[in-house]
Amino acid sequence: MSRTEANREAIERVLACEPRLVGVCPAGDVVPGLERDLILHAAPPISWNATSELLRGGLIGAALFEGLAAGEDEAEAKLAAGEIRLGAAQDYGAMAGGVGSIVASLPVMVLEDPASGSRGYHFLMEGFGKTLVLGMWGEEVGERLAWFRDELGPALDAALQEVGGLDLVPLIAEALRRGDELHNRNAAATSMLAERLAPGFARAGVAAELQERAFALMAANPQFFVPCSLAAARLALRLAEGIDGSSLVTACGANGTDCGIKVAGIPDHWFTAPAEVPEGVVLEGFTADDAGPACGDSLLVECYGLGASVLPAAPAL
Amino acid sequence: MSRTEANREAIERVLACEPRLVGVCPAGDVVPGLERDLILHAAPPISWNATSELLRGGLIGAALFEGLAAGEDEAEAKLAAGEIRLGAAQDYGAMAGGVGSIVASLPVMVLEDPASGSRGYHFLMEGFGKTLVLGMWGEEVGERLAWFRDELGPALDAALQEVGGLDLVPLIAEALRRGDELHNRNAAATSMLAERLAPGFARAGVAAELQERAFALMAANPQFFVPCSLAAARLALRLAEGIDGSSLVTACGANGTDCGIKVAGIPDHWFTAPAEVPEGVVLEGFTADDAGPACGDSLLVECYGLGASVLPAAPAL
Repeated sequence: MSRTEANREAIERVLACEPRLVGVCPAGDVVPGLERDLILHAAPPISWNATSELLRGGLIGAALFEGLAAGEDEAEAKLAAGEIRLGAAQDYGAMAGGVGSIVASLPVMVLEDPASGSRGYHFLMEGFGKTLVLGMWGEEVGERLAWFRDELGPALDAALQEVGGLDLVPLIAEALRRGDELHNRNAAATSMLAERLAPGFARAGVAAELQERAFALMAANPQFFVPCSLAAARLALRLAEGIDGSSLVTACGANGTDCGIKVAGIPDHWFTAPAEVPEGVVLEGFTADDAGPACGDSLLVECYGLGASVLPAAPAL
Repeated sequence: MSRTEANREAIERVLACEPRLVGVCPAGDVVPGLERDLILHAAPPISWNATSELLRGGLIGAALFEGLAAGEDEAEAKLAAGEIRLGAAQDYGAMAGGVGSIVASLPVMVLEDPASGSRGYHFLMEGFGKTLVLGMWGEEVGERLAWFRDELGPALDAALQEVGGLDLVPLIAEALRRGDELHNRNAAATSMLAERLAPGFARAGVAAELQERAFALMAANPQFFVPCSLAAARLALRLAEGIDGSSLVTACGANGTDCGIKVAGIPDHWFTAPAEVPEGVVLEGFTADDAGPACGDSLLVECYGLGASVLPAAPAL
């Protein structure tokens, strides 16, 4: 098979994918290979010694939340000794946006392509400010995540099961029409997700106070849908992995130190280079000198090219 | 005051308006002057003899739903004799999109500008297909409207009261960003309305089956928000009425026979001309020859120029 033929086959497989949101479950129950001592982060894989200060903050917070260490020093020591293991989320079929971590007890959105059975996963978005997805840890971060684990995750899953899951292709297509690019803007998609889940919350008998807090979280967090965008990208692109000779990029991320890609024809190898420091607007009180190399799996959304792949096929609302 | 000064004053009053959705109530309880024997339709005012076949269908349906006549013949006779009275919705501070009618028992969305106390009203949108808003009547039309009156209206009002009403300026601004023009496309605004009402439904303890049917109606009906767009236009433009010398158009509609406008400086007079037959796409099985003169108050949305007036002032989501 020529490279052109291989890439055509690869693209056809990716475009045939029709991701559905099928569950919101503890990561340890659904992500293959996710043991309790493992923390998944943005690709490519990295050793503790090579991690940036930014990623370290997130990993230590994740270890503490998961109860893998009693304090920061113990967490660092266990991470350095390999007693707490690290893995690139994309190597597990999952995605980790920003500096976020996937750990066994925390809920992930579960996406599935019915025809192939391919799945994708991403943790729930906490919002802005002091959050684990931005590498920060503290009491309020832990409390919010415990609420995700104990109440929000199960409620979202119950609502989703009541509505029979959600086809994401029409929702993604309509969100693109509504001005989202589904990487840094997921505002319209988040509104539609809330709208679609609402009857499910009612049918599942979710307590009014919990519904209210869930809707308030979504209303204040226009990136709440981004786990679907990211997980859809990975599960669709995985379908092209293993096609001999295909040069399609199927995985892509930066971990705060290195940036890496995989190509379809060589699915077990990360090609890496030092991650660049993004140029852009910085928060008040900071300068470009405070910025570090990029971190996050969300780069892969641009490889998937959500717009080009799904828009022509979807009906207009 | 010169015309320029008068128009500047008029525009300033219109732009200062900040409509809020404050209730969903039976029209007879909130629309000033709406007695039980009165049916409000799209402007300008018209006598029964001059009505088009299209508008007649809607008015007869409204009369039957309201119990003003036992059958179509009686309804026609009473309408012709003036025992059932007609009025232009815009003369009552209300709006009637399409061939729709406002009658005392049916719920309207109630908008209010807190600073001026100006109010606007519009009936709830039924969706597409066989509906009173398109001038059609039948058993299923009456059943749906009875559900609006008995269950949906009260549930929407309860949800709205629980969330303390809704500021429409940010919602309208964000809907424009999401590609709605808020006349023929209100899809993004409808999603946001559902999203904002969802916690209110939960807090008000609305039964799960009713919530489910309400959300299904909104999900299948991307024009569900248009009553807010239309009522906002009228309540804002009314604020300019009575400014001596202003030529700002403050009311506009077509009733299937005539088209009419009012200007701010002469608020009690409709300037009318024969309504034109719109050029456009027709449903399968029909030709342009089947089309009649325009009908509906929604023309006024274009006069309000929602986008120009609210977009600059509203924060981005």
